Amino acid sequence: MSNSASAELSINTLRLLAVDAVQKANSGHPGAPLGCAPIAYTLFNGVMRHNPKNSKWVDRDRFVLSNGHASMLLYGSLYLSGYNVTLDDLKSFRQWNSRTPGHPERGDTDGVEVTTGPLGQGFGMAVGMAMAEKHLAAIYNRPGFEVVNHFTYGICGDGDLMEGVSHEAASLAGTLGLGKLIFFYDDNLISLDGPTSLSYTEDVTKRFEAYNWQVLSVPDGNDLAALSAAVEAAKKDTAHPTLIRVRTIIGYGSPRAGTNKAHGEPLGAEGVAATKKFFGFDENVSFAVPDAALKDWRTAIDRGAAVEAEWTKLFAAYKAAYPELAAEFERVQSGKLKSGWEKSLPVFAADKPQATRSAGGSILNAIADAVPELFGGAADLTSSTKTIFKPGESFHENPSGRNIFFGVREFGMSAAVNGIAAHGGLIPFGSPFFVFSDYLKPAVRLAAIMQLHSLWVFTHDSIAVGEDGPTHEPIEQLLGLRAIPHLTDLRPADANETAAAWRIALERKSPSWMALTRQDLPVIDTSKVDTYAGVSMGAYILMQADKPNPEQPDVVLIGSGSEVWQAVEAAKLLFADGIAARVVSFPSWKLFEEQSPAYQASILPKHVPTVVIEAGATVGWWKYVGSEGAVIGLDRFGASAPGPKVQAELGMTAAAVVEAAKKLLKRS
Amino acid sequence: MSNSASAELSINTLRLLAVDAVQKANSGHPGAPLGCAPIAYTLFNGVMRHNPKNSKWVDRDRFVLSNGHASMLLYGSLYLSGYNVTLDDLKSFRQWNSRTPGHPERGDTDGVEVTTGPLGQGFGMAVGMAMAEKHLAAIYNRPGFEVVNHFTYGICGDGDLMEGVSHEAASLAGTLGLGKLIFFYDDNLISLDGPTSLSYTEDVTKRFEAYNWQVLSVPDGNDLAALSAAVEAAKKDTAHPTLIRVRTIIGYGSPRAGTNKAHGEPLGAEGVAATKKFFGFDENVSFAVPDAALKDWRTAIDRGAAVEAEWTKLFAAYKAAYPELAAEFERVQSGKLKSGWEKSLPVFAADKPQATRSAGGSILNAIADAVPELFGGAADLTSSTKTIFKPGESFHENPSGRNIFFGVREFGMSAAVNGIAAHGGLIPFGSPFFVFSDYLKPAVRLAAIMQLHSLWVFTHDSIAVGEDGPTHEPIEQLLGLRAIPHLTDLRPADANETAAAWRIALERKSPSWMALTRQDLPVIDTSKVDTYAGVSMGAYILMQADKPNPEQPDVVLIGSGSEVWQAVEAAKLLFADGIAARVVSFPSWKLFEEQSPAYQASILPKHVPTVVIEAGATVGWWKYVGSEGAVIGLDRFGASAPGPKVQAELGMTAAAVVEAAKKLLKRS
Repeated sequence: MSNSASAELSINTLRLLAVDAVQKANSGHPGAPLGCAPIAYTLFNGVMRHNPKNSKWVDRDRFVLSNGHASMLLYGSLYLSGYNVTLDDLKSFRQWNSRTPGHPERGDTDGVEVTTGPLGQGFGMAVGMAMAEKHLAAIYNRPGFEVVNHFTYGICGDGDLMEGVSHEAASLAGTLGLGKLIFFYDDNLISLDGPTSLSYTEDVTKRFEAYNWQVLSVPDGNDLAALSAAVEAAKKDTAHPTLIRVRTIIGYGSPRAGTNKAHGEPLGAEGVAATKKFFGFDENVSFAVPDAALKDWRTAIDRGAAVEAEWTKLFAAYKAAYPELAAEFERVQSGKLKSGWEKSLPVFAADKPQATRSAGGSILNAIADAVPELFGGAADLTSSTKTIFKPGESFHENPSGRNIFFGVREFGMSAAVNGIAAHGGLIPFGSPFFVFSDYLKPAVRLAAIMQLHSLWVFTHDSIAVGEDGPTHEPIEQLLGLRAIPHLTDLRPADANETAAAWRIALERKSPSWMALTRQDLPVIDTSKVDTYAGVSMGAYILMQADKPNPEQPDVVLIGSGSEVWQAVEAAKLLFADGIAARVVSFPSWKLFEEQSPAYQASILPKHVPTVVIEAGATVGWWKYVGSEGAVIGLDRFGASAPGPKVQAELGMTAAAVVEAAKKLLKRS
Repeated sequence: MSNSASAELSINTLRLLAVDAVQKANSGHPGAPLGCAPIAYTLFNGVMRHNPKNSKWVDRDRFVLSNGHASMLLYGSLYLSGYNVTLDDLKSFRQWNSRTPGHPERGDTDGVEVTTGPLGQGFGMAVGMAMAEKHLAAIYNRPGFEVVNHFTYGICGDGDLMEGVSHEAASLAGTLGLGKLIFFYDDNLISLDGPTSLSYTEDVTKRFEAYNWQVLSVPDGNDLAALSAAVEAAKKDTAHPTLIRVRTIIGYGSPRAGTNKAHGEPLGAEGVAATKKFFGFDENVSFAVPDAALKDWRTAIDRGAAVEAEWTKLFAAYKAAYPELAAEFERVQSGKLKSGWEKSLPVFAADKPQATRSAGGSILNAIADAVPELFGGAADLTSSTKTIFKPGESFHENPSGRNIFFGVREFGMSAAVNGIAAHGGLIPFGSPFFVFSDYLKPAVRLAAIMQLHSLWVFTHDSIAVGEDGPTHEPIEQLLGLRAIPHLTDLRPADANETAAAWRIALERKSPSWMALTRQDLPVIDTSKVDTYAGVSMGAYILMQADKPNPEQPDVVLIGSGSEVWQAVEAAKLLFADGIAARVVSFPSWKLFEEQSPAYQASILPKHVPTVVIEAGATVGWWKYVGSEGAVIGLDRFGASAPGPKVQAELGMTAAAVVEAAKKLLKRS
């Protein structure tokens, strides 16, 4: 190892900024920044094509710190490289409203691509970013015009690689041959509880080779030449993603070096002093940034301006040669939908019942040309979820193909969906059975935190699944997902509400999910009901029995999704008994909550007895029916039998609605 | 390959029972049973030490069908082997209330060890079973008395192995050297969407070798001699788990053999006839069971009686030699807690605030000797979750050690916890940060479906986590887990409620979770409040301001967990303003729902304004506060800053409770 003194100074400056910031915050993780600073330096001050003065340059290399607890490594690198992150920001690490929260948060900090911290997901999102790059390159590049041409880099730790999602994502990346994905593995032999030998003895090299990755080793994480050489070798293999195993020392230079004590707590005043001494820095100075170090790091600014200028020139020439393609590229990068795209949405005739999953498949294909940025697939379930473009090539077989066969990897799929959305230029979706939203929920949460335009199309959304039984029948999933903040829920009642749901999901530019049925449902007549307007409000009056004053029905019957039809049936039965019922279709809590109190009251008038029917956990509905209302739902698991039998036995019937309504009205 | 004609007949009988049952149900998966019948035959009629007439024999070999959609393979094998499963049961496959639901369900069917279907989890549960066997053997066996000595067998498919949980579980099993775990991998090259090459190209052999498994190959899944030889080789390697890759043909013998069309739908009348013809069976006979085949399969009964009798004799001798150990073995196998164990629970003095996670650690260690069947650990977080027995050996280093270092594998941990619970003889627990309950939720759901005695100890249960920020701060997790049916939620307000929570979790013998704090909390004085009685009721009156009629307070203030203390503080402030508040500690919705309406009304009187404060999603609480009440919670994500600052900024304060109460009471 023969790093230059100048490089050493730059690296040690980064290390000690992390040490000082953690110490000042009295909270954080100094171990990984101390061990990995040479990797960050190699990336930010050499390898990566990035522009600190324009962190949004579309063809920048992406960087993901999957072990997000090492956030100071990233913040320090961003500050030193010249991003819009100041030394004062580093001094307010982990404080209220700072730009340097405990874990990297997309949107809070210039240059942070994605929110990381929940282990393994950064790795999976990086896979998604590399997929996006590959797909966009296949669509937009032309000979001599490689307008999409960047790498995705990342750093991960043992925690990331123990998590199952890293396995799913790595296996998918290997299958897809993502040659422009390069991950450093901070192989420091230490986890929070002690040596990794306690719980983690697998042969990581062999494992990643099994996934069709190139695996390289750097035996000394402080050896800059070796790190750079590894990246060069990684870039040369264009057919496989590369994992670079770097043997580092956690907490390098500190008294706790090489132990789990260096992982997740401040070094303490003495430890900080000793560490500064080790690196030849003044123990009495905090947040020291030697001029020479800053100058060295900030050479990234000129390099960044040059590489972006080069690209801008290339893009101008591309625009001249391919004006339409360039305009389309600019459109998708801006996140704007094609003007008038919504005209391609189908309108379904009311005479032919169909499952909303089938309608979903028809909608997807109807809008395919108008929304070419849609890119996604299912977790080995396309014949069931219908989320496939026809005819359509698989992305695996042809990078311009829009169908992604994610395999039985719900969580890896969803992390990749988030990575694609974070990359930009595409609107990704993933699709499993609704009950298996449980497997991917951590990624939905991260999409909600980041407000990414990630979409999930869930099918088989209730006990009507039938024969597959309780493990395949959602109960608590509707409520569980609705409880996630800043996430749009959509459970359409028919094919036309499904078209509305798709429209809303695309227009909102924030994460949404829709729950679709396996079974056939009647179709709402759009000549009588504006389903788009209705769904947009979250809940709306689908039908109302005649009455002198329609604003005061005798009873309100709420349904969501397929259970709207039990409410409709019940309303008819009640009308025959002289009871005027209003039927409210309630496809989205989130959208309803966004409406004015006046609108809400117009749909659900106070002091009118209200019954809801939904084939899911009852608990959340009391907010809408009030203490005196009735909730018909399921606080038990489902059962294996034909769907209609299960629905009948578990009380998801019009008769149950009628009974509940009459009880509230004190009629027999 | 030279299987005997007799064995062929037996195997084909099993195959066609599956074909007929799926056809009759008009629903199900014929492909895997056709391909894997020789494996099932090898296991049930040769390799396994099991007793069809006593499926609960404690030392039986365990069998897990991880690809649970192939349920007819298992049901057919159970019927043919002589378990309490009849031909009529097979004929009512997937029908209401039958003993043969769509996927295997523990409790529904004699001989079914665990509920499988959600892919990957069966694999993980089998790992847990093998862990249980190894631990119990280390504790109870004595030289010459191997009273615990069985294998755990399983079959899995590509779907299982694509799921991340299989990676976590396999890596853990390799680290733990579970030599008595033997899995067959149904390597048929076909997944639901088509050939596995679409999405699954990894080298499974190399991958499992990387996990420290022995990997064997059987190139022809119909070759019984090769299958048996592989099992023998697997048994000989006592230091590593074994994966036997078996090249099978999905839908073997049917017109759809070798295609994804054979996977998940009935073969149709013509297909069924053709398949019967292929196997030399009469096309016009359904559910045919040739006498010779039945006789061959049912030899398992005599063999089973003999192996159990041998064990019973061994156990009688063991009992004579080690009466106390034998009694203890019988006790833990029966699931009974040691009489008087609860006396070992600590009582915490009210003068010293402490975090409930710390109290949890003290409790765990205080009851360690009285509840020796407790066995568990954390997902690489013991220094944070405090869920470690001290002094205590790691199970990895010494099989009698009670501390399991699961690694950063929340889902794999939880599947293993379920497997340990399903095995019997132990009460397992797993422990991660509460926010990462998201990663393991699918296993909690399965525990709830099976009603296993699995426990989860979650710590860092709110935004008070502070600096780690939104990704580490639970919001929707409390509500999400409470919505799972048949699961006990416990969010204690202090150290003594935590002791009560542990007592209840151990006494109930069904799955529970508890959410504990990172931060210190005051401690309730048990000389004044019976916290065990209180927590047992789900919600109880913790304090009440003096008033002429204490049954009618001016206002009820509900809190759960750490927010109970904001409610207490608010009550004091309100009392100073002449308002008599009742403070209800509400640690468990499940337990409260189990109480009589009279009790519920005595705690939450109707028509008394009610305010709840909980640092979580608000949506579920309307049931308890009524339409006119107030819910102080969080319908946004958390933030990174010191915990008290985050609590204050996000309104988790006594002042907010006071304000809400006064607003309800229309006082300024």
